[in-house]
Amino acid sequence: MIIDWKSTALKIYEDLKEKIDKLAKKPKLVVILVGENFASISYIKQKSKWAIYCGMDFELRQFSNDIEEDFLLSEIDKLNKDDTVTGFLVQLPLPKYMDPDKVINAIETKKDVDGFSKETIAKVFLNEDGLYPCTPKWIKRLLDIYNIDVSGKNVTIIWRSNIVGKPLALILINAWATVTVCNSKTKNLDFYTKSADIIVCAAGKPLLLKKEMVNSWSVIIDIWTNFVDWKMVGDADFTSLEPENMITPVPGWVGPMTVAMLIENTYLASLRN
Amino acid sequence: MIIDWKSTALKIYEDLKEKIDKLAKKPKLVVILVGENFASISYIKQKSKWAIYCGMDFELRQFSNDIEEDFLLSEIDKLNKDDTVTGFLVQLPLPKYMDPDKVINAIETKKDVDGFSKETIAKVFLNEDGLYPCTPKWIKRLLDIYNIDVSGKNVTIIWRSNIVGKPLALILINAWATVTVCNSKTKNLDFYTKSADIIVCAAGKPLLLKKEMVNSWSVIIDIWTNFVDWKMVGDADFTSLEPENMITPVPGWVGPMTVAMLIENTYLASLRN
Repeated sequence: MIIDWKSTALKIYEDLKEKIDKLAKKPKLVVILVGENFASISYIKQKSKWAIYCGMDFELRQFSNDIEEDFLLSEIDKLNKDDTVTGFLVQLPLPKYMDPDKVINAIETKKDVDGFSKETIAKVFLNEDGLYPCTPKWIKRLLDIYNIDVSGKNVTIIWRSNIVGKPLALILINAWATVTVCNSKTKNLDFYTKSADIIVCAAGKPLLLKKEMVNSWSVIIDIWTNFVDWKMVGDADFTSLEPENMITPVPGWVGPMTVAMLIENTYLASLRN
Repeated sequence: MIIDWKSTALKIYEDLKEKIDKLAKKPKLVVILVGENFASISYIKQKSKWAIYCGMDFELRQFSNDIEEDFLLSEIDKLNKDDTVTGFLVQLPLPKYMDPDKVINAIETKKDVDGFSKETIAKVFLNEDGLYPCTPKWIKRLLDIYNIDVSGKNVTIIWRSNIVGKPLALILINAWATVTVCNSKTKNLDFYTKSADIIVCAAGKPLLLKKEMVNSWSVIIDIWTNFVDWKMVGDADFTSLEPENMITPVPGWVGPMTVAMLIENTYLASLRN
């Protein structure tokens, strides 16, 4: 069974639109872009489209790729203090001469709708409410929507990034899953995938997960799109795995769900600010 | 083989004593105690003893158990600003009417020698330098001292507390271990212990880990002391497991190593402040 992300994402947008309609004040999402990275511009278009669809204001603040880091930090400070701005994010990647950690942690946690700040990391760790990072957030949400209770389930996460693997591990550990986090040095990956009720692929390694490594009843969440010979393939070998497994399709589904969580975080920020 | 914590801890103290002797300014550790919890007083005695042994100044600030939370916060603020204080901690547990999260996070991260603050959690997550929480810190240190490289190793952690299980998982994930975090709902604990190169018991469940659940070559780190019929037993069934496994003894070894890491954190804080 292929997980239907399109209707899932759309339902989230419809719900948000309805909730936002009822707010006294329209939320506003701001995206800062430094330079003209092609992929970044394409991502931002999606963010803008869905923010507006859901009834939010959206603003892009674009700067040339030779601005000083201090200038960017002062712009962030302005947005932190601007009451008309509900939430904002700095589109990554930044030019190499800038320190992304410093830039991201300059954003006030209550406006950090990407959920990358240190304070949010600690909230995820401690199982406290907050604007959770969008990709792990939607993986958990998707499981919830499909009524997959992770409590007592074996979850194998391939691999261990700061943006997906590690925060997702904490979220699922807090939800009573038995979580194994693998990496490229894991000596018996198939041992951990064979025993998993849920497998999350976030490795960026094309076709890493083969049919013989999984059980027919395992749920497979594959968040990566790799380009191989000009074709898009996931970390999971989708063609061989489907239709036995409940599985996310590749290509095409990561972006919309991530953007849905971003819009939701902006809505949640508007309730708190 | 029983891991010799006594000589391990003593060696750490001797090293610290030597390093501290060379400092221009003597570090000072302060412990805040609210009320008169018997166990707390006994822990603090150990902290005081070893801080002084290593050449630090030590001060206990004891308050009655009816002080206001605001008063405690103002005392913390004083210590944050006091240049003569290198590091300090608030001995837990606090009286029930106080919010321990609020109290702990009032301590400046650079003086938070217990390593419980949110900023430190984020540092552990991101694999950044910092004053790491003492118990997971010494588990990693012990493995290092015994030349057990965790990279590529299977580690099973039983269970998932904020103070041990979760931070240790992050530390070992960052060191390239394949880490499984179990909890009381894990459906096949023996599956994960049987496959582990290293097992860390931090469950507080007497004699949970039996001989038939582990391989003879697994390293077993047991950090818990349970009281059963007035006897001290660990989470691991020490009597049946030793001497095949490399294993930590129960009772008696958690405290001294934790205190050693606390003294080390105070020393590290003195290099930064």
